[in-house]
Amino acid sequence: MNIAIMGYGVVGSGVAEVLKKNHASIVKRSTQDSLELTRILDLRDFPDDENEKLFTKDFKDILNDDSIGIVVETMGGVHPAYEFVLDCLKAGKSVVTSNKELVAAKGYELLKAAEEKNVNFLFEASVGGGIPIIRPISSCLAANEIDEIAGILNGTTNFILTKMINEGLTFDAALKIAQELGYAERDPSADVEGKDACRKICILASLCFGNHVYPDEVYTEGITKITLADVEYAKAWGGVIKLIGRATRYGDGKISAMVSPAFIQGHSQLAGVDDVFNAILVRGDAIGDVVFYGRGAGKLPTASAVVADVIDCARHTVRRKLFGWDDSIADYVVNYLDIKHPFFVRAKAADIEAAKQSVSALFGDVQYLTYEGAAADEIGFITNTVAQREFDEKIAKADFEVGSVIRVTDY
Amino acid sequence: MNIAIMGYGVVGSGVAEVLKKNHASIVKRSTQDSLELTRILDLRDFPDDENEKLFTKDFKDILNDDSIGIVVETMGGVHPAYEFVLDCLKAGKSVVTSNKELVAAKGYELLKAAEEKNVNFLFEASVGGGIPIIRPISSCLAANEIDEIAGILNGTTNFILTKMINEGLTFDAALKIAQELGYAERDPSADVEGKDACRKICILASLCFGNHVYPDEVYTEGITKITLADVEYAKAWGGVIKLIGRATRYGDGKISAMVSPAFIQGHSQLAGVDDVFNAILVRGDAIGDVVFYGRGAGKLPTASAVVADVIDCARHTVRRKLFGWDDSIADYVVNYLDIKHPFFVRAKAADIEAAKQSVSALFGDVQYLTYEGAAADEIGFITNTVAQREFDEKIAKADFEVGSVIRVTDY
Repeated sequence: MNIAIMGYGVVGSGVAEVLKKNHASIVKRSTQDSLELTRILDLRDFPDDENEKLFTKDFKDILNDDSIGIVVETMGGVHPAYEFVLDCLKAGKSVVTSNKELVAAKGYELLKAAEEKNVNFLFEASVGGGIPIIRPISSCLAANEIDEIAGILNGTTNFILTKMINEGLTFDAALKIAQELGYAERDPSADVEGKDACRKICILASLCFGNHVYPDEVYTEGITKITLADVEYAKAWGGVIKLIGRATRYGDGKISAMVSPAFIQGHSQLAGVDDVFNAILVRGDAIGDVVFYGRGAGKLPTASAVVADVIDCARHTVRRKLFGWDDSIADYVVNYLDIKHPFFVRAKAADIEAAKQSVSALFGDVQYLTYEGAAADEIGFITNTVAQREFDEKIAKADFEVGSVIRVTDY
Repeated sequence: MNIAIMGYGVVGSGVAEVLKKNHASIVKRSTQDSLELTRILDLRDFPDDENEKLFTKDFKDILNDDSIGIVVETMGGVHPAYEFVLDCLKAGKSVVTSNKELVAAKGYELLKAAEEKNVNFLFEASVGGGIPIIRPISSCLAANEIDEIAGILNGTTNFILTKMINEGLTFDAALKIAQELGYAERDPSADVEGKDACRKICILASLCFGNHVYPDEVYTEGITKITLADVEYAKAWGGVIKLIGRATRYGDGKISAMVSPAFIQGHSQLAGVDDVFNAILVRGDAIGDVVFYGRGAGKLPTASAVVADVIDCARHTVRRKLFGWDDSIADYVVNYLDIKHPFFVRAKAADIEAAKQSVSALFGDVQYLTYEGAAADEIGFITNTVAQREFDEKIAKADFEVGSVIRVTDY
């Protein structure tokens, strides 16, 4: 059986590298007589690349080659990745992708196309890089009703927050280091605005809860407004600030899904996840909390997840049963304004006592936080659990100047 | 398709409970028309149990019932579990077990019997309770050459060590609490002597490295000799003491495997694993370090892993390809005396300066540790990396009285 790669960037070239490096054991595990990379689609030229002879700029060279049974899509973006993947599936080829944007936008359509042709569409690498998460959820946790999933899903923002927490760097200074190290793009918005994490929580929520959740249904807030004062208040509370993607199943068949910075308790398994590492917590009714931890990005970790899917496609030339999810349904994802949390608030107040009276009038008893070096004209407090809508209405009436609002988790 | 359970103890009754509680979704995921529990084998009587009508004391009622396609073995122990499981496999039934003692002692024979009849022998629940680990290693990490595996594999000992570390309780006091809470048996030796962790690292090493590793090939040391002074020295070093099972692949086709208390660095993902939780670190050549964390024991977590295997057996009525390992081979597991580590040593010394001179003469430069409240006639130090054999020879020549010797890890 032959393999093609579409997109020879970081991940695609990593896939070629892993296929070559561990070739003998990969072929053995695939249970095929052979498993060879025979075509690479990329519009760019790669002179002197060791795979030079395999390159093509014409997608049809892959689509019309019946010897190619498995296509790896590592182009990124929705178009033309979507059209190419759909054509491959319709032609009876299994497809493996690491493209979270594609799966979050078009997962249902592509899963359905795969089902119709009895081939596989797999995407382990689209969430958590090399961390096994898609397959454990669909297989190992099959005896559980999953109630909640929450994770540190973006390595770039976690690196920035770690620098802010451990070294006291500002957001801008930490971002600059991340860019210098190649962890952040020159335009870092997809990471720091939470869009990347949003795509991943869409995929996880779709898989765990059964219906496609689209990015535009998920309230998404990034980390650009987090200040060092917020970091210090979180420490005073006994925790850390992390960018968390989470989704919860409600009893009435609805779910919630959102991405935002959040206060995480210091003893949580998510609190100790530093630098570019990712971790995903799954809460099942029988198993309790399970956490999966590892490198959420990077050439070889991501490539190894892609290749594991390739091996799976080669072992199971017919479709894995019941892998995937159903179409989206109306009124499935609850409005974020109805989601309840405790909120951390940092506010400027020329008159501290007057501000505290305003806080009491609005929110009743709250937990005040302070730290050594806090600004004298500032208060920090955590409210009781309250719906976002109610919180927003109350905070609009405050006669103090709100600096930061950060949600507080119970994990 | 029908299911039988052999052994209606904590895990067996939990399997019945999970099968009932999530029945509809389990049947759907199994892709069978039905999936019913129809027989339970146990020599004890369970009057008024809701499954009362299903009980039998005669194994043949399961063996000779052709409607039973999947048998769950939750009896524990090697005999007669081995004979029963073997007979079921030979009769063409798939078997799922949570019995680590059975898999560590007879895994190869049973995998071979399953292969001969093209049925499944699955044991996700035998390591890490409900934590998905066996399947992720065999599927998700298939593109990796696994170089090392290390874990906190026993919840009872981890609970005891956590009480010693966080609350300053002695080993005996912590053990007593573990017994009162039902975490430790009245005879706690299988846990505290490391035998349970040994069985689990045997299973993991067999799966990761390809040949059966038997418990008697694995050097195993428990936690009964760990003192509060050792705990304090570990803190002074910047870490904690955990009971670690680990296995490493060497370049020459050999492996090492051992169970012992060890100094773990404070920033390690294994350091924050407290109470009865388990965590398993897998180091792959492409993926780097991945950690799986969750409840390593308990009725429902373990049962949910068993039921996930049952669902897998129902989905795939023919054997999963290439799952398992080969027979043991001679000279495969290296002698523990040849394994190299840094060692922590705690020693009594009436004359500290003389003792330090002796240390220098034996081990060259070492890292001395101390903590507030340390005994005045005691030294604690960490040697450079040295083979156990060499360490033993040197320490035998010491003219100070050795209290504790604990291995130091690099994770």
